[in-house]
Amino acid sequence: MTGLADRTRAFVREHVFPIEREIIVDGRVMDDGLRVELQKAARQAGVFGPLSPVQYGGLGLDFRAQADVLEAAGSSLIGALALNCWAPDDANIALLERTANAEQARRYLGPLASGEVRSSIAMTEPAPGAGADPALLRTSAEQVGGGWVINGTKHFTTGADGAAFVICVANTGAGPTMFLVDHDNPGMTVGRRMPTLDRTVPGGHCEVTFTDCRVDDDAVLGEVGSGMEHAQVRLAPARLAFCMTWLGLAVRSQELAAERISHRWAFGSVIAEHGMAQAQIADNEIDIIASRSLIRSTAEVLDAEGPASSSARHLASVTKTFVSEAVWRVLDRSVQLHGGLGVCEDHLVARYLVEARAFRIYEGPSEVLRWSIARRVLRPYRS
Amino acid sequence: MTGLADRTRAFVREHVFPIEREIIVDGRVMDDGLRVELQKAARQAGVFGPLSPVQYGGLGLDFRAQADVLEAAGSSLIGALALNCWAPDDANIALLERTANAEQARRYLGPLASGEVRSSIAMTEPAPGAGADPALLRTSAEQVGGGWVINGTKHFTTGADGAAFVICVANTGAGPTMFLVDHDNPGMTVGRRMPTLDRTVPGGHCEVTFTDCRVDDDAVLGEVGSGMEHAQVRLAPARLAFCMTWLGLAVRSQELAAERISHRWAFGSVIAEHGMAQAQIADNEIDIIASRSLIRSTAEVLDAEGPASSSARHLASVTKTFVSEAVWRVLDRSVQLHGGLGVCEDHLVARYLVEARAFRIYEGPSEVLRWSIARRVLRPYRS
Amino acid sequence: MTGLADRTRAFVREHVFPIEREIIVDGRVMDDGLRVELQKAARQAGVFGPLSPVQYGGLGLDFRAQADVLEAAGSSLIGALALNCWAPDDANIALLERTANAEQARRYLGPLASGEVRSSIAMTEPAPGAGADPALLRTSAEQVGGGWVINGTKHFTTGADGAAFVICVANTGAGPTMFLVDHDNPGMTVGRRMPTLDRTVPGGHCEVTFTDCRVDDDAVLGEVGSGMEHAQVRLAPARLAFCMTWLGLAVRSQELAAERISHRWAFGSVIAEHGMAQAQIADNEIDIIASRSLIRSTAEVLDAEGPASSSARHLASVTKTFVSEAVWRVLDRSVQLHGGLGVCEDHLVARYLVEARAFRIYEGPSEVLRWSIARRVLRPYRS
Amino acid sequence: MTGLADRTRAFVREHVFPIEREIIVDGRVMDDGLRVELQKAARQAGVFGPLSPVQYGGLGLDFRAQADVLEAAGSSLIGALALNCWAPDDANIALLERTANAEQARRYLGPLASGEVRSSIAMTEPAPGAGADPALLRTSAEQVGGGWVINGTKHFTTGADGAAFVICVANTGAGPTMFLVDHDNPGMTVGRRMPTLDRTVPGGHCEVTFTDCRVDDDAVLGEVGSGMEHAQVRLAPARLAFCMTWLGLAVRSQELAAERISHRWAFGSVIAEHGMAQAQIADNEIDIIASRSLIRSTAEVLDAEGPASSSARHLASVTKTFVSEAVWRVLDRSVQLHGGLGVCEDHLVARYLVEARAFRIYEGPSEVLRWSIARRVLRPYRS
Repeated sequence: MTGLADRTRAFVREHVFPIEREIIVDGRVMDDGLRVELQKAARQAGVFGPLSPVQYGGLGLDFRAQADVLEAAGSSLIGALALNCWAPDDANIALLERTANAEQARRYLGPLASGEVRSSIAMTEPAPGAGADPALLRTSAEQVGGGWVINGTKHFTTGADGAAFVICVANTGAGPTMFLVDHDNPGMTVGRRMPTLDRTVPGGHCEVTFTDCRVDDDAVLGEVGSGMEHAQVRLAPARLAFCMTWLGLAVRSQELAAERISHRWAFGSVIAEHGMAQAQIADNEIDIIASRSLIRSTAEVLDAEGPASSSARHLASVTKTFVSEAVWRVLDRSVQLHGGLGVCEDHLVARYLVEARAFRIYEGPSEVLRWSIARRVLRPYRS
Repeated sequence: MTGLADRTRAFVREHVFPIEREIIVDGRVMDDGLRVELQKAARQAGVFGPLSPVQYGGLGLDFRAQADVLEAAGSSLIGALALNCWAPDDANIALLERTANAEQARRYLGPLASGEVRSSIAMTEPAPGAGADPALLRTSAEQVGGGWVINGTKHFTTGADGAAFVICVANTGAGPTMFLVDHDNPGMTVGRRMPTLDRTVPGGHCEVTFTDCRVDDDAVLGEVGSGMEHAQVRLAPARLAFCMTWLGLAVRSQELAAERISHRWAFGSVIAEHGMAQAQIADNEIDIIASRSLIRSTAEVLDAEGPASSSARHLASVTKTFVSEAVWRVLDRSVQLHGGLGVCEDHLVARYLVEARAFRIYEGPSEVLRWSIARRVLRPYRS
Repeated sequence: MTGLADRTRAFVREHVFPIEREIIVDGRVMDDGLRVELQKAARQAGVFGPLSPVQYGGLGLDFRAQADVLEAAGSSLIGALALNCWAPDDANIALLERTANAEQARRYLGPLASGEVRSSIAMTEPAPGAGADPALLRTSAEQVGGGWVINGTKHFTTGADGAAFVICVANTGAGPTMFLVDHDNPGMTVGRRMPTLDRTVPGGHCEVTFTDCRVDDDAVLGEVGSGMEHAQVRLAPARLAFCMTWLGLAVRSQELAAERISHRWAFGSVIAEHGMAQAQIADNEIDIIASRSLIRSTAEVLDAEGPASSSARHLASVTKTFVSEAVWRVLDRSVQLHGGLGVCEDHLVARYLVEARAFRIYEGPSEVLRWSIARRVLRPYRS
Repeated sequence: MTGLADRTRAFVREHVFPIEREIIVDGRVMDDGLRVELQKAARQAGVFGPLSPVQYGGLGLDFRAQADVLEAAGSSLIGALALNCWAPDDANIALLERTANAEQARRYLGPLASGEVRSSIAMTEPAPGAGADPALLRTSAEQVGGGWVINGTKHFTTGADGAAFVICVANTGAGPTMFLVDHDNPGMTVGRRMPTLDRTVPGGHCEVTFTDCRVDDDAVLGEVGSGMEHAQVRLAPARLAFCMTWLGLAVRSQELAAERISHRWAFGSVIAEHGMAQAQIADNEIDIIASRSLIRSTAEVLDAEGPASSSARHLASVTKTFVSEAVWRVLDRSVQLHGGLGVCEDHLVARYLVEARAFRIYEGPSEVLRWSIARRVLRPYRS
């Protein structure tokens, strides 16, 4: 597997770094044309689809193997995308693999896993709807003869613009349910891309409205009423994949900082000789290595006990909280080590920092995760 | 003075907040037309020019009074600009006031203090030139009959694009010297605006080159060879003014976060009832109040002992380090308290965070300041 | 007032430092004989009783003046005690000054303010009684003809062993009430000194039981039912006095660390030349100066608006939280700067760290204070 | 191996917890009689000697297995001692195993590994000798006919009082060398036990002087001049063993805190319902789990590549730095969660905090480790 990780790193360095620089420094737009081009190169290099099932041309890696490969992919902001293992497609592939029936697999999973199309998941809603708290879900689906009618408003619907289909979570009488909605369904309107701090996801984060959106019965993914369970199962792997990939960016960021301070002269020596810069490099290294072992050991538990097991979910929460904050610290120190250049997008670390800010919020803000971690720890002590 | 601070806050709320929102949310461009319009409104409200000398239509406040007024101005990202007390003009006014001769005052200080024109200071150079370490200054000025010829390259030259004049720091045989260079001097080329993370300074942060740039003897500001001393004198007030203004933005950010969590419902109550959110609000409050008292007491020392005194400089370094980091923490927590909205520029805090990142770097990165603070503390113990 | 602070510092250095060293390093016991000896020396030096009213031989300083003098006193762990301004006597003097009737003042305040006797306050109770939450008060006082009978158990009763009197807070039908209980009241039993981490308070922190403890009507301090209000009024000044005194110890600790690293050689230079040590010295300096300005500005508000005012109480909570944590950081870094010696009580910083741990807990743990700070901040936003 | 860890935990809970409580709460002295009694019980329970070679009655575990067992042992402050795997004996056993010749193994390793005797290592010297910087070594050994004469002063010589032998590091013409010195050598004087903050190591941390201390040639451990190499090899395992054991104490501390806040009522509910307490519990959990995975993955590298390999040493430095600081945070939060009780030695966490402070200093202060970590990271970037 180390071989695959090494090849991934080499592929990203050779094929993805130059395009990343064009995007960040020269303002090249990340669109689907570029995505297809990158994924084609990945396929040629034999590193495409680490999370995709083998029958769809993927590598079908277990979680432990993903850890190394996704870290390697993450050495560029668009590396995971190039390998077809970036959000939300990565987690949607896993979700479909687990829940799609044969026909759904043929229509949705296949094209998605092979990189033919992109997908989206419509979960988060504007206030007072579901944000971090899924219990507030407002979008509803009403059963009508042979199908359903969905009504509601979503936002932060990642990748919706240009996605072939959107997985919409809506309330039914039997509870939250997931629906596969095709991009050309006239009841679904993909609105504006929200002006989020990050800019490199194809399809952006969109506002999406469902207005009397009619879907057939076979659009139901999994059982009616099991939407939250499916979302939960999707969660631990999604959190872990983010950790793996962002860790890769932290590593890259540390390399850029180390390179820079080893050659920039100030106050009588290169900056790399200054104790306070060394402290920042060491703290980066500690954060990186601690994150890496945490990710790997959690991955092993997901492999051994399944991603829906209680310990997998607990460890994924712990890992997501620690790694999202550790990565943020590493990126922030790397900016600081660049001095003035660190806040100028001529240099990658400036953009990295801005892109990464959301990682401490999406898939569970640190505070919500801490709350759920504490409850699990405290449960046995309750009288 | 509280009256003036109150009026400033009211002015900013009424006149500046709406335009700030247009800039951040709707993408309105901050240009000189808009600057002039805002400053006109400030003049009418009687809050224009808190740092400008009285004879030029300013308020001529001492440092302690500035603390309250600039914090009020800082409640918007463009409030200080509206009052004509934003960088680099604020510090350039103070510098000219102290060093300009009568003719220079007439030509440069008057128009600048009254808001008629903008200015710039060209200090920082690309590697291997002067960054945080001024000793590395590479730009040179050679004396020729009746004047000087300047050659060199600068970057991060704030506000250069559109400035009426640039104060250029260049090495002479007698040491670093400041030169007043008019915007239409054919030897000076204002190049591209660098793609820095912040976007709301008129004139941006530019690359500027001086190529056989000829200036007369009367372009010398202060004495030949005294450029570093002048820059040093400029430093403590500049650092303090930044602290005052950014503190205002931290206060605003806390207000926006408090407002939001008081109405957003999650997990059974408004977020304001959750202990972890309360901890963040409390930490914000502590950072804000600690910053405020530090700024005020340092301002009193600057008033009492002069901005060039040894204790003024020490305290300004301590204050800049603490406040820049405290403000960053406040903005970061305020983003987190907004949840997903916090990373979307529909909401001010998202932009605030990005704009503020440079504050921990410019006018002395935290690490360089810590180093100089430590040296002053340790000096008496040397054997 | 600077004069007084300077004289205080000189007094402590000359008279208190040697005895402090005997206590910490040689194990000399801090008892009342030693206390009397130290206070006599303080009186001779003209620095006795900064918080005591003038008519009782004290200096009657306002809060702002206390800030400088108590910081000076705090340069030794036993300096405040030497000046008769250490807990709980300092706050009891202020409490009695505000609430005692003439006869109570004669019998209790006079001897206490002049250092003739020590006192104690019995508030905290073992679970499930009153700890950080005063509403849980269990000790009760029942009215009987011409007096009261108190029953209940207290602990952490600071200084009880050897105190001339104890102020006991007990529930009556009309609410919590303060009672003055003489040391020889047969209904009060001062039990063991609890094995707390700190060791330098005369009288320790005791377990105290009240068993059918009979007191007369004139033992009531203030009005019946007003005990919590009195305790509240006592709180802001008590918190602030602790901040002032502990800040003094942080300053001392920084001096000891600076001294040590300026002469200890390691890895090619004195430690003072190492960047990471400089960072710790700078962080100490920042914490010290930020604490000092926060204390002073809060003291000014207490002087201007009274210690029971809403802003005084808010600022005292903010100040106590920030300073207790800043002092802890300073002491911890100073230990670290001592290397192995830092955890050996041959060196003062080792004991300082251990003694200071409780400061983040008593008179309001940081978490309880944060909670009350947040509630005050959030109140105006409630719908 | 989980079986062994479980049995270790059960043994410690049953046999060691009661005695630990007697030591901390009731002041029972930890002496060799008690040590022998505890180790006998451990032998009977089949958990004795996890680091001791099998031929000496130990379990001879590899590093990965040690991780689980030592964490279990560390659930009491004296658990590792009970299993004969506490400092300095644990690392001395490993050192002797690697370097002792047959006769030395018989005389020293056998009795030590089997718990018959204790040992000590005399490395650290008072200023200006060797502290964190071993290059400052002052103790010298001069070759005389058939042996050596050692002169020098050591301190922080852990366990020296009562040790059967001391491994003394001294400079020879050929470089630093290790010597086995028997306790009854008349040239070695074990002086006072230094008043360190920790109190539970049998034999304390002593001052030791070597005055014309004569030893034979066969007292040389390993080769003459190879003392630093041996010390280095000793270092990674010693650091890791400390991490494993102290992590156990952090886990215990979290359990005690969780237990307490689940039953203590304040402000309307048990403390476990308060968000800020939950945040501390969650942060503890994150620190514990991150420490555990870091320890385990470093242990695997030590097993795979040997404890002297470059990556083993780097990872051991990273792990020691992270874990020592994480454990300190956990213990500190656990104190805070106990409220006032947390600083009273009726409760274990008070003593745990004090005992643990040295862990951030010994075997490499965090700052020295950060320095060496940074140098390793930066090496490839040097031009």
